[in-house]
Amino acid sequence: MPLIQPRTLKGFRDYPPALMIPREQLLEKARQVYRSYGFAPIDTPALEYTEILLGKGGEESDKLLYRFMDHGGRDVALRFDLTVPFARFAAQYITELGTPFKRYHMGPVWRGENTSRGRYREFWQCDFDTIGTTSNASDIEVVLVIHDLLKSLGVERFKIHVNNRMVLNGVLEELGLAGQTGAVLRALDKLPKIGREAVKAEMSTTASVPAEQADKLLRLTELQGTNQEILSVLGTEFQNPRAAGGVSRLRELIQCVVQAGLREDMVKLDVSIARGLDYYTGTVYETFLDDLPGIGSVCSGGRYDNLAGLYTKQQLPGVGASLGLDRLIAALEELKLLSTASTAAPVLMLQFSADRIGEYQKMARALRAVGIGVEVYPEAKKIGAQLQYAERRGFRLALIAGPEEFEKGVWKIKDLGKREERTVTAGEVPAVLTQLIG
Amino acid sequence: MPLIQPRTLKGFRDYPPALMIPREQLLEKARQVYRSYGFAPIDTPALEYTEILLGKGGEESDKLLYRFMDHGGRDVALRFDLTVPFARFAAQYITELGTPFKRYHMGPVWRGENTSRGRYREFWQCDFDTIGTTSNASDIEVVLVIHDLLKSLGVERFKIHVNNRMVLNGVLEELGLAGQTGAVLRALDKLPKIGREAVKAEMSTTASVPAEQADKLLRLTELQGTNQEILSVLGTEFQNPRAAGGVSRLRELIQCVVQAGLREDMVKLDVSIARGLDYYTGTVYETFLDDLPGIGSVCSGGRYDNLAGLYTKQQLPGVGASLGLDRLIAALEELKLLSTASTAAPVLMLQFSADRIGEYQKMARALRAVGIGVEVYPEAKKIGAQLQYAERRGFRLALIAGPEEFEKGVWKIKDLGKREERTVTAGEVPAVLTQLIG
Repeated sequence: MPLIQPRTLKGFRDYPPALMIPREQLLEKARQVYRSYGFAPIDTPALEYTEILLGKGGEESDKLLYRFMDHGGRDVALRFDLTVPFARFAAQYITELGTPFKRYHMGPVWRGENTSRGRYREFWQCDFDTIGTTSNASDIEVVLVIHDLLKSLGVERFKIHVNNRMVLNGVLEELGLAGQTGAVLRALDKLPKIGREAVKAEMSTTASVPAEQADKLLRLTELQGTNQEILSVLGTEFQNPRAAGGVSRLRELIQCVVQAGLREDMVKLDVSIARGLDYYTGTVYETFLDDLPGIGSVCSGGRYDNLAGLYTKQQLPGVGASLGLDRLIAALEELKLLSTASTAAPVLMLQFSADRIGEYQKMARALRAVGIGVEVYPEAKKIGAQLQYAERRGFRLALIAGPEEFEKGVWKIKDLGKREERTVTAGEVPAVLTQLIG
Repeated sequence: MPLIQPRTLKGFRDYPPALMIPREQLLEKARQVYRSYGFAPIDTPALEYTEILLGKGGEESDKLLYRFMDHGGRDVALRFDLTVPFARFAAQYITELGTPFKRYHMGPVWRGENTSRGRYREFWQCDFDTIGTTSNASDIEVVLVIHDLLKSLGVERFKIHVNNRMVLNGVLEELGLAGQTGAVLRALDKLPKIGREAVKAEMSTTASVPAEQADKLLRLTELQGTNQEILSVLGTEFQNPRAAGGVSRLRELIQCVVQAGLREDMVKLDVSIARGLDYYTGTVYETFLDDLPGIGSVCSGGRYDNLAGLYTKQQLPGVGASLGLDRLIAALEELKLLSTASTAAPVLMLQFSADRIGEYQKMARALRAVGIGVEVYPEAKKIGAQLQYAERRGFRLALIAGPEEFEKGVWKIKDLGKREERTVTAGEVPAVLTQLIG
């Protein structure tokens, strides 16, 4: 029979241990942080009714969907994000679950995207949200969660940028431009590329915005300074009640995260971030690494008024953010904060005598019982070959005993990095290894 | 706009926190055990070329497949197990990865099965395997892994049944029935239902097995006694080299796991288990819970000669097993070994004063820093309503401070199970909570 060529689909990838170990580490740390704030895990199916997933998304989303008819003639598709399934889930169970409801959700999503920009068609999302409350306490907590997430991953130098959509919306309202939000924001977005004058020209053409008002808007999004300086300008220049409400929530947020123990310079009030046009209605977040600003935001989100309006009449406000897993892994790799081993256990026990498997595993079990991972090499190959295997996989330590050692009741411990070896009694092995692993 | 009815597809289910928390706990413990033996994680895409997944599976598997044409006109399908993707993965990368290669793989698989038997169309598998070696050391290790897995989940009373396909194959060879293996095994499988005489009659009809040979086979599969008694019968009655090889590996396995520290009665030599006709060629495993024998094996597997013959000429022998996640969760639930809380954090901090969010979160962060999960209630609702929320979610402790407590520098700690309350200084809170959580 001819062989089938082993291969993955275009845009999909395998995760061998060297890629999967750091992913699991990161996911575990994220889980720990989410849980430590009382966010609880949920999961939803990969496949849903297309009608549910598309909602009002229309043509654009449709092209991205992996969509087909199942055996029962149902129009189904693979989820393309975790927000839509969460909205459906919340509409279905919120009465039973009660509010506030805090959840995290980590899992793969699928998009039939163009792969030319190095994008994958299957990738993970890691979202956390608090729904069922409009309290600023939940907005404040999002900053703390993002902060703890990055710290737990070993990142020290980063900034969480915050803004509030109510500020810009209020100002547009004040300027009588509430109906032209879309056109105005599209023009503002081009500022870094086309410059002030061109933006003003576009605003005038597409939204009939007078030059004076355009100036006011531009001054707003260009505001620079410390958080307190920006707050002070916002508080005096924009008297519209909506804008004032946004400023007041931002002021409280910055004050509270500092009271809670964050360094003030880790949170940056940034009036230029808007994060999309429709979905977010309050606080918005983006997170940038000081040492790798170019990769963009590694954790973003915001507050919304109504999560699940497509599926229920019950209004569900909430706030949350999403960890950019692949982007963050790429960043951690560049910052050398990721493990490069392709073994999950630090110790390799070599097999010197094939008839001592029981004794080898006895010692290995004693070590596992105190939390030290030990792989026992399965064959009594030449020691050189076993050590080569140990280096290739990235084991840190090797543990060796042959007939001579068994007779004396001792073990050789080899530090594979330092290429040092010492001999200790069987009883000392767990303590010495614990110390060496650190 | 009319609402879209929120619902899942038939055969699919959501995991709210009360179901997801125990799943995550179980998956985490399994990961820890796998890693402690040096198994490393891998992942593969949910979607693969149908050709890869179907292999020689043919019509039967085809019906189960979620199969469709993707945007690029490729014939693709969702994976229906983790073994086929692992075989494809191994064929593709084994030269680069080197052998022995030990991996675990946990993830969802999809089968368009009949849901009438309470089966789901999306469920998780958790496999671990060592490939690239025929050494019995790896077969022995599988028993240790299964043992540690169940112990780590709190299960004390279980038995790992082991057998070796070489024994039965060797005996069939000796009896000149090697060509009739299929018919003979199909008849033997019916023993509990139709009884000895009917089995003998069927063997005679379908495979021309004389009564005397049928008796010998039946005696073999009905062998009862201690491991040593069965080994002794097998060792003397069946002289065929293949059968003897199987017996010798079983003898070494039982001896070594006992040497390694397992109680001998946790491993049971069971000549009746065969686990399928084609795939397994050596040691086979099934695991039964003493207190719930009826649910069947919760962890099963075996040794195979050639993992990836469809995709590569390189022969890849291996041995491994698969944890029956859903079955095990059902069992742990029945044995009351599962958490029933729908919160991941044990402590709820009530919000008494809305203007103290910074201070609440400051204390909460101090607790998180010592490993205590704390949810801060987002609104300054009535204390009764907040305590009701705490009970509903299953929090164990509540932490309360209002203006009076802040002035005195103290916190109230309420044990929600025992309905006891005490007041301690802010400095004492972490130590007292650590002790209460245990």
